[in-house]
Amino acid sequence: MTARNLFLLPGDGIGPEAMGEVRKIIAYMNEAMNAGFVTDEGLVGGSAYDAHGAAISEGDMQKALAADAVLFGAVGGPKWDSVPYEVRPEAGLLRLRKDLQLFANLRPAICYPALASASSLKPELVEGLDILIIRELTGGVYFGEPKEIIDLGNGQKRGIDTQVYDTYEIERIAGVAFEMARTRQNRVCSMEKRNVMKSGVLWNQVVTETHKAKYSDVQLEHMLADAGGMQLVRQPKQFDVIVTDNLFGDMLSDVAAMLTGSLGMLPSASLGAPDGKTGKRKALYEPVHGSAPDIAGKGVANPIAMIASFAMCLRYSFNLVKEADDLEKAIANVLDKGIRTGDIMADGARQVGTVEMGDAILAEF
Amino acid sequence: MTARNLFLLPGDGIGPEAMGEVRKIIAYMNEAMNAGFVTDEGLVGGSAYDAHGAAISEGDMQKALAADAVLFGAVGGPKWDSVPYEVRPEAGLLRLRKDLQLFANLRPAICYPALASASSLKPELVEGLDILIIRELTGGVYFGEPKEIIDLGNGQKRGIDTQVYDTYEIERIAGVAFEMARTRQNRVCSMEKRNVMKSGVLWNQVVTETHKAKYSDVQLEHMLADAGGMQLVRQPKQFDVIVTDNLFGDMLSDVAAMLTGSLGMLPSASLGAPDGKTGKRKALYEPVHGSAPDIAGKGVANPIAMIASFAMCLRYSFNLVKEADDLEKAIANVLDKGIRTGDIMADGARQVGTVEMGDAILAEF
Ligand SMILES: CC(C)[C@H](C(=O)O)[C@@H](O)C(=O)O
Ligand SMILES: CC(C)[C@H](C(=O)O)[C@@H](O)C(=O)O
Repeated sequence: MTARNLFLLPGDGIGPEAMGEVRKIIAYMNEAMNAGFVTDEGLVGGSAYDAHGAAISEGDMQKALAADAVLFGAVGGPKWDSVPYEVRPEAGLLRLRKDLQLFANLRPAICYPALASASSLKPELVEGLDILIIRELTGGVYFGEPKEIIDLGNGQKRGIDTQVYDTYEIERIAGVAFEMARTRQNRVCSMEKRNVMKSGVLWNQVVTETHKAKYSDVQLEHMLADAGGMQLVRQPKQFDVIVTDNLFGDMLSDVAAMLTGSLGMLPSASLGAPDGKTGKRKALYEPVHGSAPDIAGKGVANPIAMIASFAMCLRYSFNLVKEADDLEKAIANVLDKGIRTGDIMADGARQVGTVEMGDAILAEF
Repeated sequence: MTARNLFLLPGDGIGPEAMGEVRKIIAYMNEAMNAGFVTDEGLVGGSAYDAHGAAISEGDMQKALAADAVLFGAVGGPKWDSVPYEVRPEAGLLRLRKDLQLFANLRPAICYPALASASSLKPELVEGLDILIIRELTGGVYFGEPKEIIDLGNGQKRGIDTQVYDTYEIERIAGVAFEMARTRQNRVCSMEKRNVMKSGVLWNQVVTETHKAKYSDVQLEHMLADAGGMQLVRQPKQFDVIVTDNLFGDMLSDVAAMLTGSLGMLPSASLGAPDGKTGKRKALYEPVHGSAPDIAGKGVANPIAMIASFAMCLRYSFNLVKEADDLEKAIANVLDKGIRTGDIMADGARQVGTVEMGDAILAEF
């Protein structure tokens, strides 16, 4: 069997602790299932800045490019709040997304039954919630040029960012959304602000044309992004797959994540295009939560989002579908048993730390 | 007494019905309180397009510029979904905002006690909620140039929008937020994406400097806009005043509006700078809800947001503070009595139409 190469970038804050629990699962799969994972590890974010003066070193970028999949923890923290813009912790993540051409960000917003009551929404609105947000990740205002601050003199400065989308970028992300919808409830809702943005007008057109040309079996709806944010709060279960641009996707997926009451639980996958020859996609997997510097190093962080991100990795990068299902089921079982980290603690549950939570999931796996 | 000039732009959909109820209140105030309102009326949005081929005519723009305040209903509807971009219904509203230089959009997100149970959030999270979102309204990606779709050939197009903020634009909106906070709980939370946008970096700097220079008595917090969206859903009562840019403000104020369970209830005010000589501000008042074409003309629309917008007009354009308070109280009383339009109907309440709701509020006023 060829080796399965994983490159681990634990990052800052609670990233390393959460990654530690994934490392245990990898070791177990190698031993018990002969999975053949080979891991290497690097630095990203503040920890990379401290070591190399950059948010990720060239050497680690090369390793990320060469790996079958990258597992990413979290970046940032008050320690690096005033480092120069170009080397801020987030720059490492943004460079990985851009250089690996990870244009498709998959963010499931799933409400675990055991946690429905933890949502700030009424339980009946979120029980059984299962939305997949497909966010475009390498375009839009994140990367468009010009992106600068100009000194206009007279004490005035001008901050400029540019939102740019080309037809092919919209086409390929729409394609991912329609393909994913076919494996689910077969419904896509596309969100933009075509009433104020020209990129929104183009987005709307290209999604409509892609649908007509290749995916007319899928049900397609269009919604203005502001109305979409409202509808997510009002009646989230109306959605199956949502496809949207980089910035709206950032906002909307965070709102959706919060609806589930399980921010510490939600994984994400960022995928590139399939290679013409091998069919392999570059990929990076990361929890939706941040680096939570306030609880870092205390052994209390919830490792579930990181472990669930690894489950997505098993599914999308290695086609280990059964193993992915089993790992997700192990997470659900542990929750059903009332084992909880502090962030999702509830009456009558048993509170555990990061390591115990990882052990409990491994025991169910 | 000098006349108080109001220019009414009812617009499309339920706009005219809702405006009808405000007209009754104006007539009453003229008669019973000798308020001296002089009203004129024009067309905006789809109805203006049908009449003049433009989303607002030059004549009506002149009247809007000359008036003490503009009352705006709502624009848009499926009928005009495919009119050219330049004359789409929203263009009328955007032109009013830009030409009247209404840079400060005030969007209160208030949860009426009688409606707390209508929120999709748990009642304890929204009872007593009182947030004021201050959205910058004449800058950012809404108006920056270039804003265009370029044909690149090869079947490829490029959609471009530009987010631009100058120091003075951020300074003046921050000033409004700090001033407003002083009349409330004295807390401002500024939201941007400084981790990916240069305009966000500048926004953060200028808000910080403005605070230091003139408003250090106000408590200031900074939050990334995506985290802000999350926190609005998680624990909305943590906020007092939120200040943010045009696009984030559009998204976040809609999410906040939905939290209250009272979208049909929420007003907004859009204000210009005080005139150097007279101290008067140009101003436009509009409900947060849209034109709701599905229920237009049926006499069932909720006129409360439009009436509450008129209350803001009394307060901010004419300094009729007591009258504004009384009108807001009249709305709350009617709700307490269990009188409801269909959109906010509840068990045991009495369902009424648009006109009856207007009458009930007038009777309490
Ligand atoms: C860390 C930050 C740059 C990032 C983003 O804005 O994309 C984060 O918010 C996310 O959603 O992955
Ligand atoms: C109608 C539309 C142009 C407008 C906006 O995007 O500003 C609306 O959504 C609003 O929030 O007032």
